[in-house]
Amino acid sequence: MSLLVVGSVALDSVETPFGARENVLGGSATYFSASASLLTKVSVVGVVGDDFPIEQLEFLKERGVALDGLEKVTGKTFRWKGKYGYDLNVAQTLDTQLNVFEHFQPKLDARARAAERIFLGNIDPELQLRVLDQVVRPKLICADTMNYWITSKRETLLKLLPRVDVLMVNDGEARQLAGESNVMRAAAAILRLGARAVVVKRGEYGALLVSRDESFYAPAYPLSEVIDPTGAGDTFAGGFLGLLDRLEDGSVRSLRQAVVMGCTIASFTVEAFSLDRLRTLSLADVRQRYSSFKSLVQFDELPDHVA
Amino acid sequence: MSLLVVGSVALDSVETPFGARENVLGGSATYFSASASLLTKVSVVGVVGDDFPIEQLEFLKERGVALDGLEKVTGKTFRWKGKYGYDLNVAQTLDTQLNVFEHFQPKLDARARAAERIFLGNIDPELQLRVLDQVVRPKLICADTMNYWITSKRETLLKLLPRVDVLMVNDGEARQLAGESNVMRAAAAILRLGARAVVVKRGEYGALLVSRDESFYAPAYPLSEVIDPTGAGDTFAGGFLGLLDRLEDGSVRSLRQAVVMGCTIASFTVEAFSLDRLRTLSLADVRQRYSSFKSLVQFDELPDHVA
Repeated sequence: MSLLVVGSVALDSVETPFGARENVLGGSATYFSASASLLTKVSVVGVVGDDFPIEQLEFLKERGVALDGLEKVTGKTFRWKGKYGYDLNVAQTLDTQLNVFEHFQPKLDARARAAERIFLGNIDPELQLRVLDQVVRPKLICADTMNYWITSKRETLLKLLPRVDVLMVNDGEARQLAGESNVMRAAAAILRLGARAVVVKRGEYGALLVSRDESFYAPAYPLSEVIDPTGAGDTFAGGFLGLLDRLEDGSVRSLRQAVVMGCTIASFTVEAFSLDRLRTLSLADVRQRYSSFKSLVQFDELPDHVA
Repeated sequence: MSLLVVGSVALDSVETPFGARENVLGGSATYFSASASLLTKVSVVGVVGDDFPIEQLEFLKERGVALDGLEKVTGKTFRWKGKYGYDLNVAQTLDTQLNVFEHFQPKLDARARAAERIFLGNIDPELQLRVLDQVVRPKLICADTMNYWITSKRETLLKLLPRVDVLMVNDGEARQLAGESNVMRAAAAILRLGARAVVVKRGEYGALLVSRDESFYAPAYPLSEVIDPTGAGDTFAGGFLGLLDRLEDGSVRSLRQAVVMGCTIASFTVEAFSLDRLRTLSLADVRQRYSSFKSLVQFDELPDHVA
């Protein structure tokens, strides 16, 4: 059991119809490790500036997250500013300041290099490849990416895909990467490009897992209050890989459970701004909601007389 | 076992990225009865003009659909013209000609009045109420509506809702009717307005059933080829009510099965233009795909040691 995440640790400014927050904790590695640490041991590789309020990561340390790989360098921390309307599925980016993240070079120490499962957050695919060149014998590699890299670093992404077990993208990214408007065809094309499985994240509509052998769909948990969807995707990834690492298994059965775990923890994240809900979340809360997913999708076969 | 649908029988002109068809068979009552007749006896109440190619409904008669309630009057048949881009979830209406449908007054004969289950297609809520005034002792009433009626006939709709068991709408319609941006809150508000349950149709993302006691989510069947989404919603309604009528039951268990049946038959409709796929569809095909929904959403509980 050992899980590594390489990604951003950021300060976010977010506005939704339900309020606004300035310079609050954010970033893919942060959401990921807050989520995965409910299930397993996580190491973070990332970078922050000397303006970063490091005490805000104390709760991660208390959950056993190893932050030795989080470099602190001179300069400002990565900042993202975004806004959501009533359609909380769509973020509008108002400003992105890479700052110290611009010259980030992931350096893995001995512990990180030995990680069994790895999440490559949404960073330059060149850097994602450089991480893979440093790890020793990973059992499962999962990568996120985005439209910007699909356009600007396509060739590099195509080199990455055969080294990836699970590619995690949204509908639009899957379509763009594959050049296919139909999501199932897009997923099939991505498998042909080398990934062993694709997870298509669909925000409030759930997530779809497609592998060579089968498809699995988990809905999002129906919530009466969604405050801030920021970080839902990275929280999903944390729950997904956190469970696979905890189970030490990559079977079809475990992948399905992992998708539901991802949806479960993501459903808590969006109930509050930033990582506020994740800070206090317990595995008991998570187990309870995981179970209620069962009844959400449970139905009976048709009786024989309907024929 | 007896099911009545009141709605449009139309001639559609449709363009999708995969082709175009002019003046082909369409309309809510047509799609509904083609779908429901795989499961039960259906009566249609509607109207067509003297330009309507009535022989195109021959396949419905062969499936036992009673068309006595389909009036033929002087004038042109209702026509709809629409277009879809690669996002097949969104139809762009190019033209609507109500024609003979403008002065449609649903008149129910003895058989139709005695129907046990009723689908009120998306027509003026005044007419929907007038249908309910004619039926004798229905066991289940399901109604569709749309943004146009929610805006222009709100008061009438509010009179209809307490008489409805299941309201069938899409996300946007649910939000608009309830004045709530969150879909779960919108559904709860619609229940307070009198409906016993709400089915939120989500196109390629499936369907959500919300009643006072519980929620159920069925994904859409993941298809590699979607040609024309026209009629998917009415086909869904046909499968939903067709199964409830066949099972002669409105229990929570049956409602869940009915949602999956709706998704199942709708997944065939969109594989071809107009009613082309529905014409040749058999209950055996339907049963097979219904079963594969099981494996699509099946997952195991967490092992006890994950705690």
